[in-house]
Amino acid sequence: MLEHGGRLGRAVREYGIPREAWLDLSTGVSPHVWPVPPIPPAAWHRLPEDDDALSESARAYYGVRHVLPVAGSQAAIAALPRLRGRSRVAVVEPGYAEHAHAWRQAGHDVTTLPMDGLLARADEFDVVVLIRPNNPTGDGADIASLLALQAGREPVGAATAAPTERAWLIVDEAFIDTRPEQSLAPYVREGIVVLRSVGKFFGLAGARAGFVVAWPGLLDALAEALGPWTLTGPTRHVVAQALSDRAWHASARAWLCEASSRLANLLTRHGLSPAGGCEFFHYCVHAEARALQHALATQAILVRHFDNPQALRFGLPGDDEAFARLDRALAAVLA
Amino acid sequence: MLEHGGRLGRAVREYGIPREAWLDLSTGVSPHVWPVPPIPPAAWHRLPEDDDALSESARAYYGVRHVLPVAGSQAAIAALPRLRGRSRVAVVEPGYAEHAHAWRQAGHDVTTLPMDGLLARADEFDVVVLIRPNNPTGDGADIASLLALQAGREPVGAATAAPTERAWLIVDEAFIDTRPEQSLAPYVREGIVVLRSVGKFFGLAGARAGFVVAWPGLLDALAEALGPWTLTGPTRHVVAQALSDRAWHASARAWLCEASSRLANLLTRHGLSPAGGCEFFHYCVHAEARALQHALATQAILVRHFDNPQALRFGLPGDDEAFARLDRALAAVLA
Repeated sequence: MLEHGGRLGRAVREYGIPREAWLDLSTGVSPHVWPVPPIPPAAWHRLPEDDDALSESARAYYGVRHVLPVAGSQAAIAALPRLRGRSRVAVVEPGYAEHAHAWRQAGHDVTTLPMDGLLARADEFDVVVLIRPNNPTGDGADIASLLALQAGREPVGAATAAPTERAWLIVDEAFIDTRPEQSLAPYVREGIVVLRSVGKFFGLAGARAGFVVAWPGLLDALAEALGPWTLTGPTRHVVAQALSDRAWHASARAWLCEASSRLANLLTRHGLSPAGGCEFFHYCVHAEARALQHALATQAILVRHFDNPQALRFGLPGDDEAFARLDRALAAVLA
Repeated sequence: MLEHGGRLGRAVREYGIPREAWLDLSTGVSPHVWPVPPIPPAAWHRLPEDDDALSESARAYYGVRHVLPVAGSQAAIAALPRLRGRSRVAVVEPGYAEHAHAWRQAGHDVTTLPMDGLLARADEFDVVVLIRPNNPTGDGADIASLLALQAGREPVGAATAAPTERAWLIVDEAFIDTRPEQSLAPYVREGIVVLRSVGKFFGLAGARAGFVVAWPGLLDALAEALGPWTLTGPTRHVVAQALSDRAWHASARAWLCEASSRLANLLTRHGLSPAGGCEFFHYCVHAEARALQHALATQAILVRHFDNPQALRFGLPGDDEAFARLDRALAAVLA
């Protein structure tokens, strides 16, 4: 298993500080959560059915015709590599590490490259995997460049190739919901796969829900590989409603943009000017990142540490008190 | 995708009868459901953590030391075939069809056999998959026979083989919770894999939760293949409580045994003497099974049809009114 944020249970044991005392900034999950209403009992008791309201809500929210709900984008990340024969795969690095891991585990030849190298050398690979905005660096690439890049790669997959064998461009847009106009989802055509996440923007990380936007042939193959009943009944019910709650979407976008710039200002005041980030987190390169993470943990604040380069990722504090607490803790540990 | 019960949405459209008018007897899910309490918001909003209360509850309920929670036994059925190189696999037939499908999809050589043939020829195969009680026929095999069978197969996997390459006996015990003393789970040792389901006994089919009981090396490999966060936060919370609710377990066992014998009597009175079944359903071989299924559907009663042989599976009616309704409908369609 790879290392991830959100392991509060481990921090509780490691630092001997009770769970309720922690401020967990170790994930990119928004603390401004969609409020979950009571669940109808039938959602728990019956087998989930895939002809409920979820797909229609998702088509409207993502602005697409073809979309497949999955048990978190993680489920798609793990399954996509199993739909192809052995391929040359390029994955952005640094980036969400499960991508390279899943392609390696499935026996492909994986090269990791920084974003600019990946874009420049895309035509050398059968599969290109990038993240926008990137996690943890916040890097991106605009829609026109990506469409041009993919058009240039088409010769890699011969015109006669099966849909599962031509050149793929996989774009993980788990953190793009604050900038819906920048999503590649509405531009998807054969060869392009866009992954969207519900957990981060809606603050519903426990629901394990994501969506794959791609051409119908690929979605059919993916659905077959994932098998029946991949999402729970309660998750289908909750996510269908959350995706349709447009007034909340607008308020959440405003909240995230404001909290993100407030966090960037706070970090900068403490000499931790972000090297990157997005509306959900900031990424700070710092030679003493490991020691800093430990020092914050002794103050019951959990942040995520990265190697290569040494860096920290700070998720958003959820309210004034949490901002003030981070402020005081950084003043103390950086004094 | 294979065909399954529980597709009420399709029946609603096909027969033009509104959803709330149906009596759905098309699954083996118990209608005597564990009552789900309100969910703490954090279960929805945080990433699930695998060091919560769930594994401990499962160890106690199943009476085992090593157990892995999975997103429904379906998730394990799909993943297990990917942990082995190409193997000779025998799967019970008739039986829950996803087993043979998953092994075929992963490229193995699959033979389907009736239960007695499977037990007699087990030593010809690297992997033997059976279901007890079997779905839909209710057939079984006792613990001593299974342990003897597995002991006899050990030469197939050389003593030096990796844990993922020796002879496996996979036993799907999705419907065994009314007879806990008959479960093979406490007898698991290297080579034996037991699948348990939460959906049927607890009436929590929407929760998508199951458990794999096996030796630690296999559970580690399976956990790695399934990746992080396979169960939702709300499901982890609900299932941990349901597995610990011993008073409810006893009352549910009593309810299921009584309802099952009441259903068998009712079917017998209508000339549909069950050819098999268990506490969760009855299985009736009938030359006109397809026409009978259709006739019941016109009365808004949904049952499951099987080919080879032509048969119906009846799940349990949930209360007196549902029993009376099935009684009246059978009288009408069999008149």
